[in-house]
Amino acid sequence: MSAPAEQTRVPSFTVLREATSGARLGRFVTAHGVVETPAFMPVATHGSVKGVTPAQLHELGATIVLSNAYHLVQRPGTDVVRELGGLRALMGWPGPILTDSGGFQVMSLAGLVKLDDDGIDYRSHVDGRAGRLDAETCIAAQEALGVDVAMSLDECVAAGATPMEVARAVRRTTAWATRGRAARTRDDMALFGIVQGAFDPEQRRVSAGELVPLEFDGYAAGGLSVGEPPDETARIAAFTVGLLPRDRPRYLMGTGTPSDLLRFVGMGYDLFDCVLPTRNARNGMLFARDGKLMIRNARHTRDPRPVDERCACYTCRHFSRGALRHLHMAHEMLGAQLATLHNLHFYLELMREIRAALAEGVFPGRAAVAAGAWA
Amino acid sequence: MSAPAEQTRVPSFTVLREATSGARLGRFVTAHGVVETPAFMPVATHGSVKGVTPAQLHELGATIVLSNAYHLVQRPGTDVVRELGGLRALMGWPGPILTDSGGFQVMSLAGLVKLDDDGIDYRSHVDGRAGRLDAETCIAAQEALGVDVAMSLDECVAAGATPMEVARAVRRTTAWATRGRAARTRDDMALFGIVQGAFDPEQRRVSAGELVPLEFDGYAAGGLSVGEPPDETARIAAFTVGLLPRDRPRYLMGTGTPSDLLRFVGMGYDLFDCVLPTRNARNGMLFARDGKLMIRNARHTRDPRPVDERCACYTCRHFSRGALRHLHMAHEMLGAQLATLHNLHFYLELMREIRAALAEGVFPGRAAVAAGAWA
Repeated sequence: MSAPAEQTRVPSFTVLREATSGARLGRFVTAHGVVETPAFMPVATHGSVKGVTPAQLHELGATIVLSNAYHLVQRPGTDVVRELGGLRALMGWPGPILTDSGGFQVMSLAGLVKLDDDGIDYRSHVDGRAGRLDAETCIAAQEALGVDVAMSLDECVAAGATPMEVARAVRRTTAWATRGRAARTRDDMALFGIVQGAFDPEQRRVSAGELVPLEFDGYAAGGLSVGEPPDETARIAAFTVGLLPRDRPRYLMGTGTPSDLLRFVGMGYDLFDCVLPTRNARNGMLFARDGKLMIRNARHTRDPRPVDERCACYTCRHFSRGALRHLHMAHEMLGAQLATLHNLHFYLELMREIRAALAEGVFPGRAAVAAGAWA
Repeated sequence: MSAPAEQTRVPSFTVLREATSGARLGRFVTAHGVVETPAFMPVATHGSVKGVTPAQLHELGATIVLSNAYHLVQRPGTDVVRELGGLRALMGWPGPILTDSGGFQVMSLAGLVKLDDDGIDYRSHVDGRAGRLDAETCIAAQEALGVDVAMSLDECVAAGATPMEVARAVRRTTAWATRGRAARTRDDMALFGIVQGAFDPEQRRVSAGELVPLEFDGYAAGGLSVGEPPDETARIAAFTVGLLPRDRPRYLMGTGTPSDLLRFVGMGYDLFDCVLPTRNARNGMLFARDGKLMIRNARHTRDPRPVDERCACYTCRHFSRGALRHLHMAHEMLGAQLATLHNLHFYLELMREIRAALAEGVFPGRAAVAAGAWA
């Protein structure tokens, strides 16, 4: 007689294998699907990964996408999303969705009216309307959207913030995370805490030290990739990861290049998001193992080779560099679509290689080959 | 013992069934695939149907697409297309392609320098370079592109042309068609003649009377849908179709709405092209059986219904009107992509219904239902 099937709490996270470096292979079970980690989350800021259908995204191997609560609150509004059946229905994407809380967007995009210990008053970047974001409304919005993974509201200071500003942001981030956690009503939605502290290890230690006892379902390193030198990102990312619990998913926000992904997986991060593969695709920059390829360059005009001869994506199986250049020069939508398909394939294939190498205990192994000139 | 397999000349056209109205079900065999007629050709002016991949186009049921020799001569150039493996390779579309000759585009887009009996001197609308288009270069360009169906060079007069201008254009069109036919070197490429004559039945009769003895592989009615009232289009289209041989495909250029398609199939036309489903999609106009739907309209904001509940397209199976409105309002590429998928599905499904009704001898029958409020 076999043992009864194990009851899996949702959300749940299991480390399947860990390398001596700290890199881990994991399984993150959410309410709407399983995410094998390390995983890259394509960015669907307004509820759409620009240039690809959800069906294509699924075929590419994406298992989770990132959207943005701030943007969706502005347009079309959480009540509209709810009436349309929730964010998964709006997006036509049946799988897991993580939303960023919007704190970062309010601070970078919106007209900031007032930020204090209680929350943020802002003016919408879409229509100028006054809006209010605080720890509780942030969680309520994400619950209304019906996402699988919500982020706590945090304060992300700009590069060059003073030590006092950094310390205040850490204090507020802890207070907001605590309040948001208490305000949550949905058990099936994972809630992550975000460690802040800018580039000061001591503040990072304070931030993590306050958030970890709150037992969030996962932890993110925020406030990185905001314009600092890569070595600085790596130094703080490496320090921060050591402060996070082993048994929870670790999300490095807003990162990065293929080499960044290899590096940060090596440190023990599990989740990543970045606009690089999609935004650069629209600008005609394609990722290839030999390095980046600026498809508008005249040298590609008569080149019958695919972007990457070893690539199995739809674009590389059906289009030459010359054809892609033509589509980009003629401003045809298909040029952006095909470049996006290729770049997302490159990223998601890299993650598959990373997971395979971790499973075999040989990381980075062939993942370093997959990242090619980017490693 | 069975009879030996029939040898089919390529290109070839067979009328499978004809209604008393003159509407016919046919099979057009080209070098790169079979086109069941009546057929609608999605428009790929620069070598791409805007917003859809060739794989999606195939899934939608398109069997032949239309591109434009003038545009491809300008960019990327026929020599480049040839080096990249021909137009089918450039487009990533393995099936049949028809190219318009470019005469219409030169006259409407380019800076026309000189048009005389011998040909057309123009300045490129892309880069201002001087170019020359005549009967022979027109055929040579289409052969270099490697298309399945080429159009003869014609002179399409503007609305309001004088009788003398119309008669001169008919004379030139015959002369250019004759020269182009003699200049052709590829037997597997179908070559169509274009009947001109504006809105004068007598000139239409002259034009067809001169072109039909030249035994083109097919015939087009040109010079229609250039801004005249719909009844005028119908009057001349009906008159012209009676001048064309029954055993060749008949192509009504640049038409039209769903009701136009029903009407002109009823007259005996076999091939159609129009930018309406794709261009209107990008502008947020979706075809539905109940009529057109302007998706940006505020009344769709909270509407959880698909564009058309009876529609089986990807868009209608996965996205609500509210979701599509959101994507269009947020200027997301996916909004245009999904609208294009839906509109092309609407057109291609209508053609399937038309062919089914013809096969059953009940045309228009359920095709009129498929066209819905457009019939």
